[in-house]
Amino acid sequence: MAKTKVAVGIDVGGTNTVFGFVDRNGRCLKEASIPTRAQEDAPLLVGRLYEAITREFAPLADAAELCGIGIGAPNGNYFRGTVENAPNLSWKGVVDVVGLFKKHFPLPVAITNDANAAALGEGMFGAAKGMKDFIVITLGTGVGSGLVANGQLIYGSDGFAGELGHTIVDPQGRWCGCGRRGCLESYASASGICRTVFELLAIRREPCSLRGVSFEEITSKMITEAAEKGDPIAIEAFDVTARILGMKLADAVAHTSPEAIILFGGLAHAGARIFEPTKRYMEEYLLPIFRNKVKLLPSGLTEGNTAVLGAGALIWGELARQGI
Amino acid sequence: MAKTKVAVGIDVGGTNTVFGFVDRNGRCLKEASIPTRAQEDAPLLVGRLYEAITREFAPLADAAELCGIGIGAPNGNYFRGTVENAPNLSWKGVVDVVGLFKKHFPLPVAITNDANAAALGEGMFGAAKGMKDFIVITLGTGVGSGLVANGQLIYGSDGFAGELGHTIVDPQGRWCGCGRRGCLESYASASGICRTVFELLAIRREPCSLRGVSFEEITSKMITEAAEKGDPIAIEAFDVTARILGMKLADAVAHTSPEAIILFGGLAHAGARIFEPTKRYMEEYLLPIFRNKVKLLPSGLTEGNTAVLGAGALIWGELARQGI
Repeated sequence: MAKTKVAVGIDVGGTNTVFGFVDRNGRCLKEASIPTRAQEDAPLLVGRLYEAITREFAPLADAAELCGIGIGAPNGNYFRGTVENAPNLSWKGVVDVVGLFKKHFPLPVAITNDANAAALGEGMFGAAKGMKDFIVITLGTGVGSGLVANGQLIYGSDGFAGELGHTIVDPQGRWCGCGRRGCLESYASASGICRTVFELLAIRREPCSLRGVSFEEITSKMITEAAEKGDPIAIEAFDVTARILGMKLADAVAHTSPEAIILFGGLAHAGARIFEPTKRYMEEYLLPIFRNKVKLLPSGLTEGNTAVLGAGALIWGELARQGI
Repeated sequence: MAKTKVAVGIDVGGTNTVFGFVDRNGRCLKEASIPTRAQEDAPLLVGRLYEAITREFAPLADAAELCGIGIGAPNGNYFRGTVENAPNLSWKGVVDVVGLFKKHFPLPVAITNDANAAALGEGMFGAAKGMKDFIVITLGTGVGSGLVANGQLIYGSDGFAGELGHTIVDPQGRWCGCGRRGCLESYASASGICRTVFELLAIRREPCSLRGVSFEEITSKMITEAAEKGDPIAIEAFDVTARILGMKLADAVAHTSPEAIILFGGLAHAGARIFEPTKRYMEEYLLPIFRNKVKLLPSGLTEGNTAVLGAGALIWGELARQGI
């Protein structure tokens, strides 16, 4: 019997690096992870990954065949095969990650950033399957995004396109992790909604179950739970967040006019609490010709690790282009 | 001797409709125009265009051969071949413009909006020749734009992508022609800078050569001339305009990371007066990874009508895809 072809999908995170064996249909045969040890050099991580992948693949080797490696990593650059000044890793400067992998594996290897990988995953296996124009936005600690137009991911001239989290909401606004002020990420992310609650706690006098929580302790999950119990400040925080997100999604639509925008990550877990008002404000801010056209969807990659499936989709796309 | 293949490039404007015979290298053999008579039905305009094109082409017929028709028109939709609710034409609803042309000409016909046509023209014959990722922005009475990524124009899911003029600068800001508030077009256009001067005339007490000019009379050219003579309010109006434009260009870069942004149209005629501060503010508002990478360029279609060359480029691109 012919062996099942599988790609290794790897998600390099600040804490853990997760990998899985992903088949052409987006089924993840097996998943495992190792600690990233962010302070270690990249070659050490790749060496440990080689050992772990080899070990985990061994029991599958009779039925499956490895045919490529896809990597999603912060600041991963598709064109150069590098990770450049990754925010959560102590790797210095520009690291040739694809080159490091190729020393261990005689296979096609490709890399991109985590949000782009997620967009490729949604397009190949998830909510955007069959769509040629869509945007994927991750509302986690930060805001990442991947834009697909004409059926292709937009990498831009330098491989860094799709930084919607760093479009500007208010040039005199909140300080952002990027060193500038007023970026979307500082409002419409899991951490941004926490900042909004603290702003509202200062402005309003209503009682609120979050008045006893410190800035270090508060999470977007706590805000969702408070909102579900009717807490007025938590409810308003969702409204403020959705208005800003809806406005910037309307701007994004004015750029690439996607068929759908897919939201996922921590803040998207609030479900209708965030989707419903974001959709309403987006429609309000849309140019009339775009109204009632753009779907706002949750991730369709529910069965498995989105980032791993996305990294798998990256290399499956490369293999398809090479006719493999 | 083989005849030179030429495409008809047509620019449908509110006042005049201009056409020209454009060869594969972007040379316009001849240009002519007819009044649009915006209140007339579309079939009448197309009929008059057929007569005019036939008449003007007759003297060229020994040396040239018509091989297609490209049309740039407000709200032109590439996918459907239509013009939909065109702002400056009294044509009602959705008009099948490609269908109307095909009744007269047994040739390939394609349509898109004027800014998209300009982007195709810059890419094929102008300042973006050889680039795969760029944006063209027209700063006329309105603000139009065409986005190219991966070497392809982004039409989006509905054919209406690239409405950067209607991204939102300030949701409580100026009323825009589209019925919403605070669109980029209401600030960073030839008409927007006039509105900015009137705002500054109200705020400031300095003498200004434009204090004797009415809102109906003022033009962006008058503001440029006043600024060149050192008028402080005119100079400040350029600074205000450039700051807003620079900020929204930085947002556009965060979407598609282009190699260059090309500015043209009425306000771009102010040259360094608008390019220099716009570039400076754009760099200030750019996410650090994008800084000092993006060129801000004037149109490279200096020899001839940009819109006609753009419409010609549209159909040359179609013919190339069909192997003609």
